[in-house]
Amino acid sequence: MAEDNRLSEDDVMLADAPVQTESEELAKPDDRIDDERHDEENRLKPEYIRSVRDALEARDNNAVYDIVEPLHPADIADLLELLERDERARLAASITDLMSSDVIAELNDFVREEMMEALEPEAVATIVEQLETDDAVQLIEDLDEDDQQAVLAEVEAEDRVAIESALAYPEETAGRLMNREFVAVPEHLTVGDLIDYLREEGDLANEFYEVFVVDHMHRPVGTCALNWILTTPRAIKLTDVMKRDQTLIPATMDQEELGLMFEKYALISAAVVDESGRLVGQMTVDDVLHIIAEEAGEDALLLSGAGDGDINEPIREAYGSRVRWLIANLGTALVGSAIIAAFGAAIEKLVALAVLMPIVASIGGNAGTQTMAVAVRAIATNQLTRANTWRIVWKELRVALLNGVTIAVLIGIGTAAIFTPQLGVVIALAMVINIIVSGMAGVLVPVIFERLKQDPAVASSVFVTMITDSMGFFAFLGLAVASGLA
Amino acid sequence: MAEDNRLSEDDVMLADAPVQTESEELAKPDDRIDDERHDEENRLKPEYIRSVRDALEARDNNAVYDIVEPLHPADIADLLELLERDERARLAASITDLMSSDVIAELNDFVREEMMEALEPEAVATIVEQLETDDAVQLIEDLDEDDQQAVLAEVEAEDRVAIESALAYPEETAGRLMNREFVAVPEHLTVGDLIDYLREEGDLANEFYEVFVVDHMHRPVGTCALNWILTTPRAIKLTDVMKRDQTLIPATMDQEELGLMFEKYALISAAVVDESGRLVGQMTVDDVLHIIAEEAGEDALLLSGAGDGDINEPIREAYGSRVRWLIANLGTALVGSAIIAAFGAAIEKLVALAVLMPIVASIGGNAGTQTMAVAVRAIATNQLTRANTWRIVWKELRVALLNGVTIAVLIGIGTAAIFTPQLGVVIALAMVINIIVSGMAGVLVPVIFERLKQDPAVASSVFVTMITDSMGFFAFLGLAVASGLA
Repeated sequence: MAEDNRLSEDDVMLADAPVQTESEELAKPDDRIDDERHDEENRLKPEYIRSVRDALEARDNNAVYDIVEPLHPADIADLLELLERDERARLAASITDLMSSDVIAELNDFVREEMMEALEPEAVATIVEQLETDDAVQLIEDLDEDDQQAVLAEVEAEDRVAIESALAYPEETAGRLMNREFVAVPEHLTVGDLIDYLREEGDLANEFYEVFVVDHMHRPVGTCALNWILTTPRAIKLTDVMKRDQTLIPATMDQEELGLMFEKYALISAAVVDESGRLVGQMTVDDVLHIIAEEAGEDALLLSGAGDGDINEPIREAYGSRVRWLIANLGTALVGSAIIAAFGAAIEKLVALAVLMPIVASIGGNAGTQTMAVAVRAIATNQLTRANTWRIVWKELRVALLNGVTIAVLIGIGTAAIFTPQLGVVIALAMVINIIVSGMAGVLVPVIFERLKQDPAVASSVFVTMITDSMGFFAFLGLAVASGLA
Repeated sequence: MAEDNRLSEDDVMLADAPVQTESEELAKPDDRIDDERHDEENRLKPEYIRSVRDALEARDNNAVYDIVEPLHPADIADLLELLERDERARLAASITDLMSSDVIAELNDFVREEMMEALEPEAVATIVEQLETDDAVQLIEDLDEDDQQAVLAEVEAEDRVAIESALAYPEETAGRLMNREFVAVPEHLTVGDLIDYLREEGDLANEFYEVFVVDHMHRPVGTCALNWILTTPRAIKLTDVMKRDQTLIPATMDQEELGLMFEKYALISAAVVDESGRLVGQMTVDDVLHIIAEEAGEDALLLSGAGDGDINEPIREAYGSRVRWLIANLGTALVGSAIIAAFGAAIEKLVALAVLMPIVASIGGNAGTQTMAVAVRAIATNQLTRANTWRIVWKELRVALLNGVTIAVLIGIGTAAIFTPQLGVVIALAMVINIIVSGMAGVLVPVIFERLKQDPAVASSVFVTMITDSMGFFAFLGLAVASGLA
């Protein structure tokens, strides 16, 4: 290696070696933010969308192309999502050579499905062959069984085998999601061997952040981050720089668990192994980002009974998933009504009870929802386990007591002033009882569902609401009758 | 470079070159899953926690150390979170040399804050000096002003300057969160120059996935992923392999936006620039994973009025953030009560109205919450913008109509059977009206808050609930009176 080829240290600027500059002379950075097409939150501007729409309307394909051409593939995907259904097809037809695999991969599932359904199987197959396996699988798994077969029949044998082996794993598992392209090398190499090999081999995975070291059975024995390879002398053996302790992802692992592993251990990529421990793929963090965002955002939607809750979800599917929960809630609302009906005579005597009872139920419902949201997030992020359940229940009990007393004092005084002091005492007591019951239900219902191996985010809401409503009506009306008020 | 030093291609195993193996002989992978300390979801087992507790109870420091020593730092952080407050201090004291900066960095904010408050400023300063700047900032920003000053006074000048410059940026911006260690090189280098430099320089950033190429003003002009450097011949110029089009993060960018940028453009790391366009730091994806999970999970908590909603939040803070929303909801519940009170005479005449009115309000509330959760997620992920608002409103109107008619038929028939056909018609009509109003409120309220530059997740709930409750009572009781029923 020629000495004169080397760089003097002074030539290299590092973070802690600031450079003298005159800030007046500096241009704006050439970035993707605050350009003429994006607003300050990096969304495509309405005026930009309008210009695309106008060009589509005028059937001016060249104008459409010129307007869309500067966009990043992820922004073209956003643009397609923002347009109407018929505009999407026309846009795709106007910019065929910009409709890269990256655009397809970045599209919202529902929009992609809709666009693919409009294409012939041969056209879909052509797209599939351009995609990386993981993106191809994502596209194909959304199609119905017949379309899947029709498309796969048109795909080249090699790609078809890879896609079919991915489809053999259940949806949302590492085996489905993993990338089948990765770099694995045997244990006896030196750093120099590895670098030479990487330079010579033309057909490497597009994205890799670590090189997996495997034994003769193709089982991972260690991993080398690329920055260690770059900063280590050529003669050092890989086994001397590699990290032996690595996180291996079983191919059957669910994506939620996968996301938590990446987050917990700050992973950039990880080896996926089959049941016999052999390396079969890698998960890279760029794919996991979507998973983490999806899984974490899902709770808000599930808790509210909004199903997939995607604004691009077709009306029929949105109706189907939401109406089920409304019907379930209708059932639980009837429980509350039955309790009110039992106190019909009391309400006839004192109509103030009918006026005030929804307040008790409503605030209880809010208190229950607060606790439930906290518990569901804590369970989803593995923070609430058997080891600390009772400590958390005890904590929530004290919070509920504080909340209950505060609200009870407010509503009690107000009611005493407007109606009677006795009714003020009754509603205050009912409020304390209901907020405590709600707080307990908010933590215990999700915990019980978790122990029963059910997703607490899906089913807890209906039960917590039923408990808070019923207890609200029962405590208030029951106390009113018991105290001789009505 | 010696030819004989090279690796023959047959020596290297790639993904698509499977190795002959006999699966009977294979051992289990040496991973972190399914070991004796973790359950199938990678949570620490209750029995393991119990063994730690027992050893702490017995004041047997050696036993504690032996039990905890095999854990990954992120698992030690989990363990501390799962223990009681007094156990945490005792555990930390028993395993001082395992309490690495990685453990501190991985700790839940509230738990870290509590543990730091128990330490002297000198002890905290010692920990701060071991941490990377971004983790040190995270630790210090949670302390109160006096403690911050006391700790900073004990920290070495160089670290102090870095931390103070980070603290000068607002919380949750790139300037606070970024890592100040990164690798930047001038434009004239070749790939070989760069590799030699990286090998010689001992004091490089611990984590880097790309090398930033900067001009003489220290402004980024391009970026080289490490895998391109490794797969490119030495003689090639950096300017010929680098990607010129890169995503630059302004130091003032909010973390929510930052997370969306990483997700949208599938970034592993990105350059952070100051207002004059100079490179001042980098954000790496491992830190962004936490941000994405936090921001996406936050919506469920904010929508339910649970504030930070962390199970480790101290009781006083949890009470403070939650009771505010309960009081706000008390205010909105009073609006509903006022409407009921206006129809007091009707209820006295027909007590069935009091029995049924909560159903109309409750199902409307559910329908509104569903739509609101979908709209809030779509706004947070930049999917619902000015460009498609009316299309989404129109879609939600149709979903609401379908839901409304379905529920109206069910409740209408039931009410007709139990009470009177006329009351069945009244409740069915009221239900359709309320579900449509709720669906519209669910999408329009968050959209309006967004346009007013308010976080839709924070404030929408109270307003949507008020609208659905009031409209439920008003439509039902109003129609009952108008139809001459009461």
